[in-house]
Amino acid sequence: MFNTFGSIFRLTSFGESHGAGIGGVIDGCPAGLVLDEEFIQAELDKRKPGSAHAGLAGTTRKEADRVKFLSGVYEGKTTGTPLAFFVENSNQKSGDYVKLAYTYRPGHADRAYDEKYGFRDPRGGGRSSARETIARVVGGAVAQLYLKEHGINVVAYTEAIDGIYANNFGAFSLDACEKRLFFAPNEEVIPHWQERIEEVRNNLDTLGGIVSIEAHGVPAGLGEPVFQKLDACLSYALMSVGAVKAVEIGAGTKAATSRGSQNNDAMYYENGKLCYTSNNAGGIEGGISNGQPILLKAYVKPIPSVAKEQKTVSREGENVTLSIGGRHDICAIPRIVPVLKAMVSITLMDMFLLQKRMNKGNDF
Amino acid sequence: MFNTFGSIFRLTSFGESHGAGIGGVIDGCPAGLVLDEEFIQAELDKRKPGSAHAGLAGTTRKEADRVKFLSGVYEGKTTGTPLAFFVENSNQKSGDYVKLAYTYRPGHADRAYDEKYGFRDPRGGGRSSARETIARVVGGAVAQLYLKEHGINVVAYTEAIDGIYANNFGAFSLDACEKRLFFAPNEEVIPHWQERIEEVRNNLDTLGGIVSIEAHGVPAGLGEPVFQKLDACLSYALMSVGAVKAVEIGAGTKAATSRGSQNNDAMYYENGKLCYTSNNAGGIEGGISNGQPILLKAYVKPIPSVAKEQKTVSREGENVTLSIGGRHDICAIPRIVPVLKAMVSITLMDMFLLQKRMNKGNDF
Amino acid sequence: MFNTFGSIFRLTSFGESHGAGIGGVIDGCPAGLVLDEEFIQAELDKRKPGSAHAGLAGTTRKEADRVKFLSGVYEGKTTGTPLAFFVENSNQKSGDYVKLAYTYRPGHADRAYDEKYGFRDPRGGGRSSARETIARVVGGAVAQLYLKEHGINVVAYTEAIDGIYANNFGAFSLDACEKRLFFAPNEEVIPHWQERIEEVRNNLDTLGGIVSIEAHGVPAGLGEPVFQKLDACLSYALMSVGAVKAVEIGAGTKAATSRGSQNNDAMYYENGKLCYTSNNAGGIEGGISNGQPILLKAYVKPIPSVAKEQKTVSREGENVTLSIGGRHDICAIPRIVPVLKAMVSITLMDMFLLQKRMNKGNDF
Amino acid sequence: MFNTFGSIFRLTSFGESHGAGIGGVIDGCPAGLVLDEEFIQAELDKRKPGSAHAGLAGTTRKEADRVKFLSGVYEGKTTGTPLAFFVENSNQKSGDYVKLAYTYRPGHADRAYDEKYGFRDPRGGGRSSARETIARVVGGAVAQLYLKEHGINVVAYTEAIDGIYANNFGAFSLDACEKRLFFAPNEEVIPHWQERIEEVRNNLDTLGGIVSIEAHGVPAGLGEPVFQKLDACLSYALMSVGAVKAVEIGAGTKAATSRGSQNNDAMYYENGKLCYTSNNAGGIEGGISNGQPILLKAYVKPIPSVAKEQKTVSREGENVTLSIGGRHDICAIPRIVPVLKAMVSITLMDMFLLQKRMNKGNDF
Repeated sequence: MFNTFGSIFRLTSFGESHGAGIGGVIDGCPAGLVLDEEFIQAELDKRKPGSAHAGLAGTTRKEADRVKFLSGVYEGKTTGTPLAFFVENSNQKSGDYVKLAYTYRPGHADRAYDEKYGFRDPRGGGRSSARETIARVVGGAVAQLYLKEHGINVVAYTEAIDGIYANNFGAFSLDACEKRLFFAPNEEVIPHWQERIEEVRNNLDTLGGIVSIEAHGVPAGLGEPVFQKLDACLSYALMSVGAVKAVEIGAGTKAATSRGSQNNDAMYYENGKLCYTSNNAGGIEGGISNGQPILLKAYVKPIPSVAKEQKTVSREGENVTLSIGGRHDICAIPRIVPVLKAMVSITLMDMFLLQKRMNKGNDF
Repeated sequence: MFNTFGSIFRLTSFGESHGAGIGGVIDGCPAGLVLDEEFIQAELDKRKPGSAHAGLAGTTRKEADRVKFLSGVYEGKTTGTPLAFFVENSNQKSGDYVKLAYTYRPGHADRAYDEKYGFRDPRGGGRSSARETIARVVGGAVAQLYLKEHGINVVAYTEAIDGIYANNFGAFSLDACEKRLFFAPNEEVIPHWQERIEEVRNNLDTLGGIVSIEAHGVPAGLGEPVFQKLDACLSYALMSVGAVKAVEIGAGTKAATSRGSQNNDAMYYENGKLCYTSNNAGGIEGGISNGQPILLKAYVKPIPSVAKEQKTVSREGENVTLSIGGRHDICAIPRIVPVLKAMVSITLMDMFLLQKRMNKGNDF
Repeated sequence: MFNTFGSIFRLTSFGESHGAGIGGVIDGCPAGLVLDEEFIQAELDKRKPGSAHAGLAGTTRKEADRVKFLSGVYEGKTTGTPLAFFVENSNQKSGDYVKLAYTYRPGHADRAYDEKYGFRDPRGGGRSSARETIARVVGGAVAQLYLKEHGINVVAYTEAIDGIYANNFGAFSLDACEKRLFFAPNEEVIPHWQERIEEVRNNLDTLGGIVSIEAHGVPAGLGEPVFQKLDACLSYALMSVGAVKAVEIGAGTKAATSRGSQNNDAMYYENGKLCYTSNNAGGIEGGISNGQPILLKAYVKPIPSVAKEQKTVSREGENVTLSIGGRHDICAIPRIVPVLKAMVSITLMDMFLLQKRMNKGNDF
Repeated sequence: MFNTFGSIFRLTSFGESHGAGIGGVIDGCPAGLVLDEEFIQAELDKRKPGSAHAGLAGTTRKEADRVKFLSGVYEGKTTGTPLAFFVENSNQKSGDYVKLAYTYRPGHADRAYDEKYGFRDPRGGGRSSARETIARVVGGAVAQLYLKEHGINVVAYTEAIDGIYANNFGAFSLDACEKRLFFAPNEEVIPHWQERIEEVRNNLDTLGGIVSIEAHGVPAGLGEPVFQKLDACLSYALMSVGAVKAVEIGAGTKAATSRGSQNNDAMYYENGKLCYTSNNAGGIEGGISNGQPILLKAYVKPIPSVAKEQKTVSREGENVTLSIGGRHDICAIPRIVPVLKAMVSITLMDMFLLQKRMNKGNDF
């Protein structure tokens, strides 16, 4: 297994959903960073089951999810040595899962996992559990502390749920979005999403949506021209989150139906400053950041655990039906937002350090 | 710079568009593989300027692009030692480029490259040149030779050009698509694409499209459950090709508007064989291949080098206009198809070796 | 910083000597291994301050050093997911160290560390503390559990202390050496070593020695012919332990004064089995194990913390004198033995998995 | 196989002794370095069969060994893109080797290679051939060009041949050593070495020796405190050269019989400059360079190809005798000196770039 992400700022994730807890080790974090544990905990709280952002979409499980740092901090600052952290599991109902152990849940990793490894921890998906993303959110929060110090601000919000686009209901105010229900970019869309979620829940079904992640203040020069393109690394980061089925940068899918003259972002100087007329590139040209905001979208599939009865098979080779009750989310959206934000933050941090460590000019 | 791709089957790419040539080293290729140089050359010919597939979309440059292997082959078979290869450059018109040296071409890496490195080889984009993809196509062809021996077949074709979808004009016959103009999945769409390209060319503009890549015969078990998810690795591979602005797996963007009960691929046993009712997952569940075909789409932006006059800036900080004549493609589509196929092939080869080297059951 | 060791079986080490504790994450451990925590704790106890093996050579600090696993184990067996572990610090006397904070201790990393990082955690050397080796011993113990299952036995013992060679006093019985004081290969040498250590202690000085590490049952085929030579990897492993100043394989330094006809290990068949007349190669030819025992020696320098007064400098640039009291070891030897054994075990485990995952014959 | 060395300055080596040639790709070389091809060729000439340095010790083969760069250079300077190079093989007498194909040569990789891979290119050892070191010498020469620009000078010389130490015959003048026969550190020892070599040659045998490598001008701060210790990396580099059986740093093996008070290098300030009274540490403390010269020694075994008759076995399992005539070296020493120098240079370059890219102070 490969449980490390990043090349300079490296996050190694460990832990199971039904073991002692979830943790991680961050190696390569610069020294001297004020480790604002309150901020980190707040980021973690955003993905917590039953978080204020989840509204009716979330599970009813309540978990404390308190992060504790085990190393790498001295008098409130990072020392540059590995930052290890741990979040204890508290509310484990393995019983809920054991009955599923021998039934392959459609849309889950169950069967592929069995095919790969020949066996499977029946308790909640093991490493395939969404609970593993705790380590990512903590890693991302540490990255954000550093990025903020360097003028880079990552923001993530829900663009659409089940085809209901927020921009049809009002303008966006990104500053406030992380405080709103569903990480909505405006207030107006919220009741529409709530209504739809309620309807789908009553229908014993689940729904998906689109998450936008933007990074402002990213300097030009991040990313490599051949393989470690910034957009390639960001796609890898987003696609490494379970439910994401498509990723786009800037104009994204729309670029495929644009003409070159439309899609190109024209440049001009105004008051000695280079400006772009548009940002179809999403802040990345030739794999390298160009100083414009980085614009990403992730398309999130509906939660596969539906209460509706589904046809499926057992591990033993029988055709069976399955209806997944339990305490599952109706929509991954609110809880996946901080995870996607974290993955983008870790990637930008890694690429920022990589670039920072090279000298502009004669040395790369 | 990082010019190596892959973890076990590793391709290191070198060379510039206007230097001696383009080459690569493949380290980690299994020994005993019959190195069918004719097949490899044929794959390379598909991305060649002026290739039969390009129709009116391609540049008029003619380059021999003959691949020569420098090591790792003995009596026609790989020896397991590094496979080095080289493709000489023959038709270099640096003059065409030098006049562009100090003008930032919109939609190109020019400015970001300058911001990153502080200097730039003015001749044709250096490592950012599409000519670098020669190394990828050779690497991909070697991977395909191995994959074929193991029953895996990768096919790539054009799904749409400028919003004209092939499936509106006829059924797909994928076996023949690599022999057709534009790698079209049916004959019927070809005149429509030709007409549109002709129209856009007369309009001094360029256009984009959508490429599908499918892998059939991929066994279940490829990919890792946390970070090296197969879909994440494939996204990284596709996004590392210049013009790609969005990537999707299976249902992709459509998954964001599906309900869980629709989007889940139900399983059932028929004659003792596990079957799926659909393939919205695109052959990957929880980051691991499930034995169904891998289905990928790449959204390709229009070529940024347009003959139409564009506003842009010079390196020295002036506002200028630019009209790019030269021998440029109108549409990246036909030539990018073998490159995307190659990147998917290299990734699958790498993940296949990774998985093959682990034992199902007690050891991973 | 780089705190990860290994390529398949990867140990990431974290923690400081005067923080919450020392821990690690092992990624890439095969699933299904019985995690014998008693054995692991016993290995850890061997390096413990005040261990039975240390005799008069050790420090008088007493630390519980209990290892606790945080993930990767289910019903007593590894699951193949990351194995995280933690050992709490209990007996921290930072005060002892703070007075040293601004004096560069000769023979320590103090000044080089300051030159590199510009600052230094004054409490006990931070990551340069020998206490960091706790993570290595735990990692090595897990590796040994696996190696044993595959017939590979790693043994480490003290060859000489301060020039007093054990083989001058009696034959070796390696089976018992790990139970003896100083990990001595025979009983006879022990009083001589004790006497010398006592003498040197009274003289306010410290002493060094030679540690042998042998691996029996290693199959032929481990290691790579060019860069990842088995001997190169083992040298790296041993030299990554603080006090080691020279490493040799097989005949080692003596090979430099042998003739080819003497130094070559002649081969012959006896009863259909390939035998060697000698093992000057130390079990490694051309970087690849040949099936003979792996024979390594590490030359360990005397502990630099001497009670005798030394001339040195302060961080502020003054010439000062320093006499290091505290609870320091007189000789690294007994406590370094399990660490060197662990590093060899981790390296062999890593190379074993690497080789195991390739197929003899057509595929490497 | 793993044919890449280094983490930032990465050399990928390819080619076989009896194929088209030997080459390599250097990725991560800073841009703007004047690529003095004359210097590089001169370094390569030093390891050439029949080189002026080899005297009577070398083989009588003559090979042109001209290095040709294929990419990464523009107007005589590196561009920061991959530097690929190739050295054609010219004088291949596979016939000499074919008769050895089925006899395992004692002291060679033959049998271990067969055990590992199940097959072997019979022509001259394939990748295990010493000819592979051509790629290392070219890589090392490029590294030296950069290191020199930064005030770092690497020098390598022969300390002893067959137990005859140069320092018994005269003082050392390292400036001249690379021009002398055998890379001797003084003129006086040369006739003694020549005489001994002649004697051993007449005796149909071979001999070994000791090579010293020193690096002057290395700034403090290179290397990492835990795993990527500078001494560990240098040991790995030296041990990755075929004939090396022991490696030492500074006092090396002698440290094992020193007392702490002797072995410590005391520090003092003189005229505001920090000085050391000795250099037993060999310039490395706690894995980090301390600004003193780096002092390394490699113990080289005698060439295993002896003309004297040896007992050995065939691949088919028979006991046979073998006498290796051919055009083999009597002593690896003169030709291994530039290779060891190259490996140290590449390692220092890599660690220098790694450290250069971090900021002293708050950021590592």
